[in-house]
Amino acid sequence: MPAYHVPLREFRFVLNEMLGIERFSNLPGFADAPQDVADQILEEGAKLAQNVLVPLNKIGDSEGCTRHPDGSVTTPTGFREAYRQLVDGGWPSLSSDPDFGGQGLPHVLNLAFNEMVSSANMAFGMYPGLSHGAYSAIHNHGSAELKAIYLPRLVSGEWTGTMNLTEPHCGTDLGLLKTKAVPQADGSYRISGQKIFISAGEHDLAENIIHLVLARIEGAPAGVKGLSLFVSPKYLVNRDGSPGARNGVVCGSIEHKMGIHGNSTCVLNYDDAVGYLVGEAGRGLNAMFTMMNEARLGVALQGYSQSEAAYQNAVIYAKDRVQGRSLTGTKSPEKSADPIIVHPDIRRVLMGARAFNEAARAFTYWTALYGDLQHKSPDEALRQKAGDYMALMTPVLKGYLTDLGFAHAVACQQVYGGHGYIEEWGMSQFVRDARIAMIYEGANGVQALDLVGRKLGQNGGRAIQTFFAELDDFIAAHESDDALKPFIDGLRSAKARLLDATGWLVQNGLANPDEAGAASTDYLHLFGLTAFAYMWAMMAEKALQNQGNEPGFYATKLATGRFFLARVLPESGALLEKIKAGGATIMALEEAAF
Amino acid sequence: MPAYHVPLREFRFVLNEMLGIERFSNLPGFADAPQDVADQILEEGAKLAQNVLVPLNKIGDSEGCTRHPDGSVTTPTGFREAYRQLVDGGWPSLSSDPDFGGQGLPHVLNLAFNEMVSSANMAFGMYPGLSHGAYSAIHNHGSAELKAIYLPRLVSGEWTGTMNLTEPHCGTDLGLLKTKAVPQADGSYRISGQKIFISAGEHDLAENIIHLVLARIEGAPAGVKGLSLFVSPKYLVNRDGSPGARNGVVCGSIEHKMGIHGNSTCVLNYDDAVGYLVGEAGRGLNAMFTMMNEARLGVALQGYSQSEAAYQNAVIYAKDRVQGRSLTGTKSPEKSADPIIVHPDIRRVLMGARAFNEAARAFTYWTALYGDLQHKSPDEALRQKAGDYMALMTPVLKGYLTDLGFAHAVACQQVYGGHGYIEEWGMSQFVRDARIAMIYEGANGVQALDLVGRKLGQNGGRAIQTFFAELDDFIAAHESDDALKPFIDGLRSAKARLLDATGWLVQNGLANPDEAGAASTDYLHLFGLTAFAYMWAMMAEKALQNQGNEPGFYATKLATGRFFLARVLPESGALLEKIKAGGATIMALEEAAF
Repeated sequence: MPAYHVPLREFRFVLNEMLGIERFSNLPGFADAPQDVADQILEEGAKLAQNVLVPLNKIGDSEGCTRHPDGSVTTPTGFREAYRQLVDGGWPSLSSDPDFGGQGLPHVLNLAFNEMVSSANMAFGMYPGLSHGAYSAIHNHGSAELKAIYLPRLVSGEWTGTMNLTEPHCGTDLGLLKTKAVPQADGSYRISGQKIFISAGEHDLAENIIHLVLARIEGAPAGVKGLSLFVSPKYLVNRDGSPGARNGVVCGSIEHKMGIHGNSTCVLNYDDAVGYLVGEAGRGLNAMFTMMNEARLGVALQGYSQSEAAYQNAVIYAKDRVQGRSLTGTKSPEKSADPIIVHPDIRRVLMGARAFNEAARAFTYWTALYGDLQHKSPDEALRQKAGDYMALMTPVLKGYLTDLGFAHAVACQQVYGGHGYIEEWGMSQFVRDARIAMIYEGANGVQALDLVGRKLGQNGGRAIQTFFAELDDFIAAHESDDALKPFIDGLRSAKARLLDATGWLVQNGLANPDEAGAASTDYLHLFGLTAFAYMWAMMAEKALQNQGNEPGFYATKLATGRFFLARVLPESGALLEKIKAGGATIMALEEAAF
Repeated sequence: MPAYHVPLREFRFVLNEMLGIERFSNLPGFADAPQDVADQILEEGAKLAQNVLVPLNKIGDSEGCTRHPDGSVTTPTGFREAYRQLVDGGWPSLSSDPDFGGQGLPHVLNLAFNEMVSSANMAFGMYPGLSHGAYSAIHNHGSAELKAIYLPRLVSGEWTGTMNLTEPHCGTDLGLLKTKAVPQADGSYRISGQKIFISAGEHDLAENIIHLVLARIEGAPAGVKGLSLFVSPKYLVNRDGSPGARNGVVCGSIEHKMGIHGNSTCVLNYDDAVGYLVGEAGRGLNAMFTMMNEARLGVALQGYSQSEAAYQNAVIYAKDRVQGRSLTGTKSPEKSADPIIVHPDIRRVLMGARAFNEAARAFTYWTALYGDLQHKSPDEALRQKAGDYMALMTPVLKGYLTDLGFAHAVACQQVYGGHGYIEEWGMSQFVRDARIAMIYEGANGVQALDLVGRKLGQNGGRAIQTFFAELDDFIAAHESDDALKPFIDGLRSAKARLLDATGWLVQNGLANPDEAGAASTDYLHLFGLTAFAYMWAMMAEKALQNQGNEPGFYATKLATGRFFLARVLPESGALLEKIKAGGATIMALEEAAF
């Protein structure tokens, strides 16, 4: 069975040393999680992940979910009991609003817990993950009545939630969607239509499932401006809050997917299902984006969480499997061959994955902390900066961490040779599960377009200018630090390339939007690399500062960072060159020539 | 059902225009396949691939193979009938020795047929593919008696063949293998041991299966020098050539794999199975390499064949699926949205795949032609060059075409959005099937080490020097050709970088072999990119020459080549930079730090 051990020391390094979240103990929630409490929470979370969720990961993959003729769905063996333990432990409520039973702790702490769950069992983690998105949409946009009815049980985890956007003929282009909502005399709506790809859309883990559904109110205009968001529960809710009559939404089938078999991906058929408007009519997309943005951070995390799990297993295998001798002389004369971790090409793969995983975690938590600050900081300028960063970094995180997370999971699978291809060993599952993260919550090409077409230019480019200024400040503050010099040099070079690419985009993308589209994915990757260079510079700074306390840990951290500078960061040059080559060759062919 | 249409025009372009195989009509076999005959053969092959094999691809994936309690294995529905048609059509004999019933046609033509089969149904194609490897090993190394008994029926396809190398504890490091062979009074051997990952190891397609088995003759030295190669048939062969008593080799189980479900991957248990020595005792690895090298070309082809199939389907989907509007204004006002092929990021993926597929096909056939020349040319210098190129290019083809073939299949899957993740649509299968090509017949890391550690330095570097000289000659011959200039510039720059990297390797790899190991994969990719730059230059030259005849086809060819120059070739700079960064950061950590 594949292993996964929560790298708590790495978590603590990012949270306590690099981000220093204790600095924010004046803010609501942060005060309740001083370092010792936060550490304890993470340790308890690690127990749940390792002892309960890891053993169910392969079972979930092999068994998958089963839909019965009545439309009910059974999750894999053990998922119900594991979900009960999750709820009993109070985990779904970690960062939710205390007014509705939540613990109100920082989101960044919740995200750290989510990473453990996702590395341990990505398909399982999606059930509570989507609930939290539904919670946020209602919390941010719902009426007081809706909040009172739905939030407490979503917070406790007694009920779960879903997001219903996609229809057979539309995913990215939600303006095309057809599901309709007919107003009723009592202020409610009746919803009819078909939604597909609904993760966790039907299951046996919770007593009710709260669907957040995008639909068009009868008579509303075509396009996205005609969309509204509704709550439509699986069971209507009685006055006492208990689940009542079955609503008109049924799982028509479940999909046979490449991975995440443990999560039920449903076709949901709405047939005059009762629904309640969330927020204003016609502002559905806006409300949905609250869920989407949160979900995108969660998906970014899924990308690197699979790379982390795959990495840990590849290390175990590479130390255990003996094959051939080191090129520089026998290392394990007592064995018939040396463990394959002696081979440089195996090291290249392992170093690549760990350099990615550590920077990805840092980048995710660094951004998530701004998510907390955006809502909780008393400093208006900081709130604005935090909001800008959340908007700017979300597509970068989603696109870069899932593209690279998948690639590193594939590379770690390769360490196993032929055994990597055999399902029994579990490496295939990490790859197959990681693959979906590049697709859902907005395919990565859509993220790239969101970045160059929307986020870069918002408020006159304020967000990216703030980011560039932050990089410049960091470089200026540390350029006389000899020990940090290689990291500062790397960051300076990456930043210069990103600035160059940004300037090129402004010049060319405005005149011809196809130039922006043609550059978008390479630009997103260049942005991700630059952010990683910043993360490594910040991590190296702390490692140099603190290395006296625990030399081994920090020496490894610095060595991993140096690998990033030498063997990963050079990709920024090729990306810039591709971007500046322009889009003409991409768009040259007539459609018929394909 | 996923589609696949054999791109015959592309095949003819490479064979007839770029390679001009009619130039070799003085050679045995080539004389029998003038252009019109070769074209006809390919057209007939395309019918088999499209009409018979494509419809079975998804069935093979869903059903997989079934092992029965008696050790027999049933292939998926339709495979038996398809295999019968393959045999009836004489396809297995295409390029085999006429002395044993073969048609003696050029290998490069056979490879073109194999590409069709592999794009249509990779798992099916492995059954005849492995037979051909067994044929080659016996043909090159077997005694006259073994040839007489086994070759005619391997050539006809009545029997199939396998390669038995891997054991549970060894794959790459065959020196560790334990299967033993005990000499018998009659000159035969009795073989005992366990072999794993045996593709096509047991099935119901043919009346006999001829296993080529590496084993250690009792008393032989440890390591690879103690290995010998044996023929061990599933059924012993009667004097009249018919299958007789069952031999002591049985399929113990079949693997559950990530892909290629239609091919049975077997554990084969040898229990005093009768075997016959092929070639000299102790020279088994040498004989096995005859099979391996041929197999590696076949695997390279599998890599891009899946990218080709995935590309064709992505094009169909991108033209059909409407979603959003073009950034430069509505293109299909009559539809609710524009087809997604209008979007630059979708174009980027499609152009990337086609630029790869076309160069990969050219590179494979170009190399395979040298395989013919190595054996058939009367010119000794050419035979030597051909042999050098086969040795040098085989690891590059295997490593680069399978790494990139997989990456492009993944990219094409992405075009489908969520539907790409649903098995029903078939894109997942291309990805899952393509994944194995990076692993088997020597994992790609082993190919990279073979390239830098063995092939580069052979005969004082003669092969690579010949290749560099050929590139220089081509550049010199065409540098005054204005129309070809961008291609010559691209080739010159790539060649300079590969030369630089080669020099760096010679300098540093000899002093510290770990430096060679650390650079090996990036070097292999840089080599592949440079070879592609050469293929594109040669293709562009012919396209410019011939464009008057069929302007659309050649304009598309040139546009695809220009995309390669602008948006792919820049990667060579990053690869060179990574190589020259050296291996220190890769090898910095103690084993315990992982």
